[in-house]
Amino acid sequence: MREILTDRLKRLQAALAESRLRALSVVAGPNFYYLTGLSFHLSERPTIGYFPADGDPVFVVPALEETKLTGADLPFGFQYATYTDSEGPDAAFARAAELLVATGVGEGARLGVEMRRMRVMELRLIEESLHSQIAAAEEVLAGLRAVKDPAELGHMRAAVAIAQAALTATLPHIRVGMTERELAAELTAQTLRAGSDPELPFAPIVASGPNSSLPHAFPTERRLAPGDLLTLDWGAASHGYMADLTRTYAVAELPTVELQRIYGLVQGANAAGVAAARPGVACADVDAAARRVIADGGYGEYFVHRVGHGLGLEGHEDPSMHGRNDTPLALGMTFTVEPGIYLPEKGGVRIEDDVVVGADGGISLSDLDRDLRVVA
Amino acid sequence: MREILTDRLKRLQAALAESRLRALSVVAGPNFYYLTGLSFHLSERPTIGYFPADGDPVFVVPALEETKLTGADLPFGFQYATYTDSEGPDAAFARAAELLVATGVGEGARLGVEMRRMRVMELRLIEESLHSQIAAAEEVLAGLRAVKDPAELGHMRAAVAIAQAALTATLPHIRVGMTERELAAELTAQTLRAGSDPELPFAPIVASGPNSSLPHAFPTERRLAPGDLLTLDWGAASHGYMADLTRTYAVAELPTVELQRIYGLVQGANAAGVAAARPGVACADVDAAARRVIADGGYGEYFVHRVGHGLGLEGHEDPSMHGRNDTPLALGMTFTVEPGIYLPEKGGVRIEDDVVVGADGGISLSDLDRDLRVVA
Repeated sequence: MREILTDRLKRLQAALAESRLRALSVVAGPNFYYLTGLSFHLSERPTIGYFPADGDPVFVVPALEETKLTGADLPFGFQYATYTDSEGPDAAFARAAELLVATGVGEGARLGVEMRRMRVMELRLIEESLHSQIAAAEEVLAGLRAVKDPAELGHMRAAVAIAQAALTATLPHIRVGMTERELAAELTAQTLRAGSDPELPFAPIVASGPNSSLPHAFPTERRLAPGDLLTLDWGAASHGYMADLTRTYAVAELPTVELQRIYGLVQGANAAGVAAARPGVACADVDAAARRVIADGGYGEYFVHRVGHGLGLEGHEDPSMHGRNDTPLALGMTFTVEPGIYLPEKGGVRIEDDVVVGADGGISLSDLDRDLRVVA
Repeated sequence: MREILTDRLKRLQAALAESRLRALSVVAGPNFYYLTGLSFHLSERPTIGYFPADGDPVFVVPALEETKLTGADLPFGFQYATYTDSEGPDAAFARAAELLVATGVGEGARLGVEMRRMRVMELRLIEESLHSQIAAAEEVLAGLRAVKDPAELGHMRAAVAIAQAALTATLPHIRVGMTERELAAELTAQTLRAGSDPELPFAPIVASGPNSSLPHAFPTERRLAPGDLLTLDWGAASHGYMADLTRTYAVAELPTVELQRIYGLVQGANAAGVAAARPGVACADVDAAARRVIADGGYGEYFVHRVGHGLGLEGHEDPSMHGRNDTPLALGMTFTVEPGIYLPEKGGVRIEDDVVVGADGGISLSDLDRDLRVVA
């Protein structure tokens, strides 16, 4: 781990220099973990890591988390400031700003921040203590994290194996008359039992019948009924790396001919998206490959979201696999391929796999059966 | 629900006028839910609700969530803009700004935002489309939400009952040699089985032996051993309202005399904190009442955090029960009382209850035994 962290810091510092950023600041969460191996929760107690392009990192952590930092086996020097609940964080941020002076971070310097994660609270503390120019750091971070190394891919494979084992253990429990929430509870229990990290990427989506036409449905008290489509979208994590899978089943009997037809289109779109994921291909072209199958089948207007999103330490990370992202794929990038068709009132189908870019096309980390299967 | 939402909007609009805010903007999450009854996840797809002091709300939602909004039974008029993944949100935010013109929200107007929740991403989209003066809305929101109505208290009681049932069902499974992670998985499964909302407030903390000296430990592969202290900090949710409890047990046998002593001090501090929670008493005085017990016992320096935090739709919300918060308590406010003593290397104790302010002192919603109990 020490060697990995040393390498990541070097790569970060090179990327900062190239982007003309004097430092990166990261809040509690995946980027902090990526750079330090330390897990902090994003809470009302601000936690910040400043990583200068030139010089040692400086941290601000709540006093009650201090031992996480001092007990860590970090391969680089660092300085830090703490604060108690009753002191509040202002003085600690001011102290961090003093510690950063030697690195050139401060008045007027360009500081990269996580636009999608840092909150206005931390932004204001930084603005008041550092008077830096705030810039988006998403590209620098994506450049660091989008291509996974073999250890990271190993963790993702492990997470997928856990998620698949959990689903396989859950399927025999599915019954007509069971509520979506009961099924979600069973799937979560099986995921933890199968060895997932205690913090799951997200609570499972269990959406049946008409509810399956909502891509982001929350599990309800609706009871499974014969002829329903049943969408399960669930995750697992291993060493912080995530799996995110979706399968759609038929409850008790085959659904209507139209629902069987859209199932087939989504299955074809999933395969086309995975196959398209070669090095040098634009993200948008993967989206287009999957979308074409559905559009040619006459259901283009019901595929209302991008084909997928990057996956790794975050459930959703770069690259975003949407129709206007011309970022070229590279070997070792990982993302979901999850086309769907959602027919209001009738039901929806989504089939999602986790994919790594391989030389001859995407390699799915997941191998659960994708044919329409009747359960319960 | 329609009447409740109508009342909340009226109270919000009065509070905005009083705070000289032209509108409140809320992102996906608890405040959005409080004002609309609609659940959205905070994701890389920005979702915003603008609530003008004078006029109908305006929303920006991702296209794939549009039916959540249009299918909702809202008791007020509203307008909205959507965007697809490939369009991105900029044009939808610009459109929302046009829709807001009639309400006086825009150039130069004061707009309240959630400092602890809104991200730099949403802030920039708002700044670019509205050119408003950004102000912290935390006080307005705390004023609306800190005192719970009877329906809210009913949901919190239900959440506490679920959490307690889950712990009671888990205790018989505890064994010497079990890992913290195995125990965390069992507790989570029991919490969902006991009827919690599918999205738990947080993944349980299970910290044994020396690990219990870390207030925010993550469950590890450490195996429970005789003489350990074992801290379980877990939650449950019902209708979006949360329970957050902690109990500390002895594994297989009583721990050292010193650990028994700190247990007694924490138990006394918990009781003192709960008793102090009367209307008109400052938050700081509840903290002080609990802290005094621990300080008088000689362990003041090992109680490294505030005595508690507000609880409701969020796991941590206002009021913050720390030593410099002079906000007076009011009947019906809800928060945790969770003193702790953490002895590095040796172990820690925390006992946490969920409390509502009553006329003669705090009323604990939780009634699980607080005496030191040997398990496994």
